Amino acid sequence: MRTHYCSHVRETDLDTVVTVAGWVDRRRDHGGVVFIDLRDRSGIVQAVLDPQDLPVASSLRSEYVIEMTGLVKSRPADSVNSRLATGQIEIKVQALTVLNPAKTPPFTIADAAEVDEKLRLVYRYLDLRRANLRENLRLRHEIVKLIRRYLEDELEFIEIETPILTKATPEGARDYLVPSRVNPGQWYALPQSPQIYKQILMVAGFDRYYQIARCFRDEDLRADRQPEFTQLDMEMSFMDQESIMALNEGLVRHLFQKVQGTTLPNPLPRLTYQEAMDRYGSDKPDTRFGLELLDMGEFFQGTKFKVFASVLSGGGVVKCLAIGGGDEKISNTRIKPGGDLFNLVAQFGAKGLAFIRVRGTEQEIQLDTIGALKDSLSADQISQLIQLTGVKPGDLLLFGAGPRAVVNEYLGRLRLALGAELGVIDESQTNLLWVTDFPMFQFNAEEKRLEALHHPFTAPHPEDLADLKTARAQAYDLVWNGVELGGGSVRIHQRAIQEQVFTAIGLTPEVAQTQFGFLLEAFEYGAPPHGGIAYGLDRMVMLFAGAASIREVMAFPKTQKAQDLMSEAPSTVTPQQLAELHVRQVTK
Amino acid sequence: MRTHYCSHVRETDLDTVVTVAGWVDRRRDHGGVVFIDLRDRSGIVQAVLDPQDLPVASSLRSEYVIEMTGLVKSRPADSVNSRLATGQIEIKVQALTVLNPAKTPPFTIADAAEVDEKLRLVYRYLDLRRANLRENLRLRHEIVKLIRRYLEDELEFIEIETPILTKATPEGARDYLVPSRVNPGQWYALPQSPQIYKQILMVAGFDRYYQIARCFRDEDLRADRQPEFTQLDMEMSFMDQESIMALNEGLVRHLFQKVQGTTLPNPLPRLTYQEAMDRYGSDKPDTRFGLELLDMGEFFQGTKFKVFASVLSGGGVVKCLAIGGGDEKISNTRIKPGGDLFNLVAQFGAKGLAFIRVRGTEQEIQLDTIGALKDSLSADQISQLIQLTGVKPGDLLLFGAGPRAVVNEYLGRLRLALGAELGVIDESQTNLLWVTDFPMFQFNAEEKRLEALHHPFTAPHPEDLADLKTARAQAYDLVWNGVELGGGSVRIHQRAIQEQVFTAIGLTPEVAQTQFGFLLEAFEYGAPPHGGIAYGLDRMVMLFAGAASIREVMAFPKTQKAQDLMSEAPSTVTPQQLAELHVRQVTK
Repeated sequence: MRTHYCSHVRETDLDTVVTVAGWVDRRRDHGGVVFIDLRDRSGIVQAVLDPQDLPVASSLRSEYVIEMTGLVKSRPADSVNSRLATGQIEIKVQALTVLNPAKTPPFTIADAAEVDEKLRLVYRYLDLRRANLRENLRLRHEIVKLIRRYLEDELEFIEIETPILTKATPEGARDYLVPSRVNPGQWYALPQSPQIYKQILMVAGFDRYYQIARCFRDEDLRADRQPEFTQLDMEMSFMDQESIMALNEGLVRHLFQKVQGTTLPNPLPRLTYQEAMDRYGSDKPDTRFGLELLDMGEFFQGTKFKVFASVLSGGGVVKCLAIGGGDEKISNTRIKPGGDLFNLVAQFGAKGLAFIRVRGTEQEIQLDTIGALKDSLSADQISQLIQLTGVKPGDLLLFGAGPRAVVNEYLGRLRLALGAELGVIDESQTNLLWVTDFPMFQFNAEEKRLEALHHPFTAPHPEDLADLKTARAQAYDLVWNGVELGGGSVRIHQRAIQEQVFTAIGLTPEVAQTQFGFLLEAFEYGAPPHGGIAYGLDRMVMLFAGAASIREVMAFPKTQKAQDLMSEAPSTVTPQQLAELHVRQVTK
Repeated sequence: MRTHYCSHVRETDLDTVVTVAGWVDRRRDHGGVVFIDLRDRSGIVQAVLDPQDLPVASSLRSEYVIEMTGLVKSRPADSVNSRLATGQIEIKVQALTVLNPAKTPPFTIADAAEVDEKLRLVYRYLDLRRANLRENLRLRHEIVKLIRRYLEDELEFIEIETPILTKATPEGARDYLVPSRVNPGQWYALPQSPQIYKQILMVAGFDRYYQIARCFRDEDLRADRQPEFTQLDMEMSFMDQESIMALNEGLVRHLFQKVQGTTLPNPLPRLTYQEAMDRYGSDKPDTRFGLELLDMGEFFQGTKFKVFASVLSGGGVVKCLAIGGGDEKISNTRIKPGGDLFNLVAQFGAKGLAFIRVRGTEQEIQLDTIGALKDSLSADQISQLIQLTGVKPGDLLLFGAGPRAVVNEYLGRLRLALGAELGVIDESQTNLLWVTDFPMFQFNAEEKRLEALHHPFTAPHPEDLADLKTARAQAYDLVWNGVELGGGSVRIHQRAIQEQVFTAIGLTPEVAQTQFGFLLEAFEYGAPPHGGIAYGLDRMVMLFAGAASIREVMAFPKTQKAQDLMSEAPSTVTPQQLAELHVRQVTK
């Protein structure tokens, strides 16, 4: 049997006999001698075979599974490979067994990254053989291990499993539903998160809970979403927002130190939701670069430019991005209808982008813009504008005007696109920050009602109880280089407040009772103050791995059509199976 | 904020100020002074309050959530409680905050074990507050922690998550099905185990995989089953049956040592399936007691008792249990039609139980039985019978005759029932053993076809390849005191053998291709020899905890009707939801 993993054979094993097993990564036939790169999960070792002693050597092909026994020898000086852990040695093979031959695979493992992803998903077991994916999954395991041990050993968290067959709730995204055979007409839902169960665990007195929890969302899959995903789910009792955030900073600091050797600042920086939206147009701002949104409302209030004036008098805002060197880099064509930047902002509600090109010299600044805007500015105002925005010749100002939320949104998107395009993002930075003081609710224009910005179990700020509709939430998101890494909140633990929140989002007392009656009741039997957080594990691993997609850090991801191309799930089932479940397929 | 968990306050904290938080477990009003037992997840601490300083003391009720700050003092000698970790001290409370009041709960926590289970499941968060359940879940966490760390640190296993939304397969138990919204007419299945995925992971080269995996079975729930359950799932490559068993013995030995301080024998004892069935009538024999099944075929072949003779000549068996002291303890009424022992064996296919009561003295044995049997035995034969069965006066012989499998089954059941009733089981023993050499297939009389005894991916013994139908499997079950703790096998890793097995269980090549085509294909692209095992985690924890049911070691179990009585899942959903899923409810 195997004595070593391939890449663990070292110079310390010289002149000893080892047995290794794995896959033929490469075979090179050099006339009288055959070289085999043998691959297992640890990496690669080189073996040398004499086909006269071992005729089987000539029959070996890529991806054959073999076991070899031989003597460890130093490589000749000219074939030492310093990039390989085993680059100093090779195995002189004495015996070889083919454990399983292999057909020629549809793509070679080494070049798999270049292959169409759909084909790789069909042959996922081949794709998973490449070093990149293998290392991603190993990193995932290491990260989970670090998290578990930190929470268990340093913080006395207890891991508890919550159900997958749960109750359907109408809030939030669409549920995956499961018909009950033994309860005709009734359905389970797969959980979108263990939210209510973990709160119930706090009411039950478990004090500190965590789980690496599988969650499900039946969404129309956007770019990088999966129907099932994994989150690190935590909940803790008798702690307030500050202490929960401090505890989580400890966890995150530990992770970054161990995974990538980064020492994070202590404490982490914070932005309120309002600041983040005002300055970056995003509640997950990428603060690795400036290009902040500048509020020009006050300035334009004093000008005669009617378009902006009417927006401002209607309660809207006028904001701009000051783009260094933008005059040359960004043509009018891109900003005008049909241009890429126009299309980008139009997607998020912009009617257009006004521009001012800053030209001339430091001594004699000249503005290039539409006549109506240019004509509305006095010389003094132009100086003031230059001063307020900090621009110099060669720069470009792009303006958005309209409702605050809309302008923030599209200028925030524009900022990110330009930041990437202009190369101003410092990729070496590991930029973590908290965003706090989210509003409790946002207005859902489609359904014409308030909806919870996080979820309806989030506690309002104690100072804001007088008017819940405008209250801030005790919620906090952790943002890493512009990506939401985790989010949480202090929860409501009192029935009366929970009922007020349900009312605010338009749940009638009857519906609230049907859906969440048990939680409301639980709050009456001794519910401790509690709060928690959840981190998107797939995304976290993706960021640590520097992978392009969460599909690269999951063993068996699904496509955007929510299909597993390897096993061909989902698939049809028999009418008998459906009959047992008391359902019938509806065909168009 | 809290400085200590309740039960962590000790004499070393004397005369310091501590803050604790938790639930009022008991309040005793001794005139001028109020005693509070405060409970949190760690246990209990006693607090003393002067209601003149703290009027709130009088308003406290059971399950109120409070926070208290006070000075740690020694208890007066007469109130020291040596059964409590905190029994030497008490807290003289200086400040108290009611964090959340509580209504009078439907049952008191201390007495919850006596309450109807249905009520406890409705108020699961209250039931979970009792020490017993709390400790069970903590033990579960500790066991999982021990398993993870052993597999990760000692054996280099890597944890990999496999999907929950998988492909429906017709083999085995009934699947839970999930309609796909974006793929009309297609369904996912919740996995009964990660079996195929873990084999694919071996083909992908991960070498050693494990997962604490959620599994699902839509069964008509028997006594102690749950629709969702958890297993420790492992798979490993380049190992044969012996090395897999040795590795698992290491894990199990570690667990028993750490969890209950038991040193298991090394190696663990083994029985073949045939031995286990012959001697104990069970493939998970409880060998803590004798009362083995004795094969009396040879003996009765030589007698004139026609009933047995005709069974034997028809290929059946005659076996018996020799029950020490059974003559007195087991009346004829219990053995005859309508009796409890008769009913027990009849359930498993017995037509009846023949008996011989051994009476008289050692010197002059007398048998009491039916005439036909008595008359058929010569004096010599009687002596031989006494010798073969080892009985003495006062004992009872109970006979079963019929097809081997049926007799083994019902006598095995009878053996267990009598073992428990007669108190011959040594409860102090921790009796672990392997059962090996299972047959590949058993005959499913209902469907008139062979079915896989374990599952169709189990490899046959290499010596038995000539006739798969009668082949032994390379399968192994681990049995703990008569309960199956885990089971596994070496897997097939070659397409041709896998196809033969599919054929043997009656899958047409077309169906095999539709269901398992990707696995068959994977075997052709370099599949290593591999095998694995799965342990039922819920049952394992139940046994370690000494709990009566797996519902006592899960946070949120479901009832036998697969309902969550707390959240009221499953529940009805809206017709719109179903329409989106392309299904319609069928009403009777």
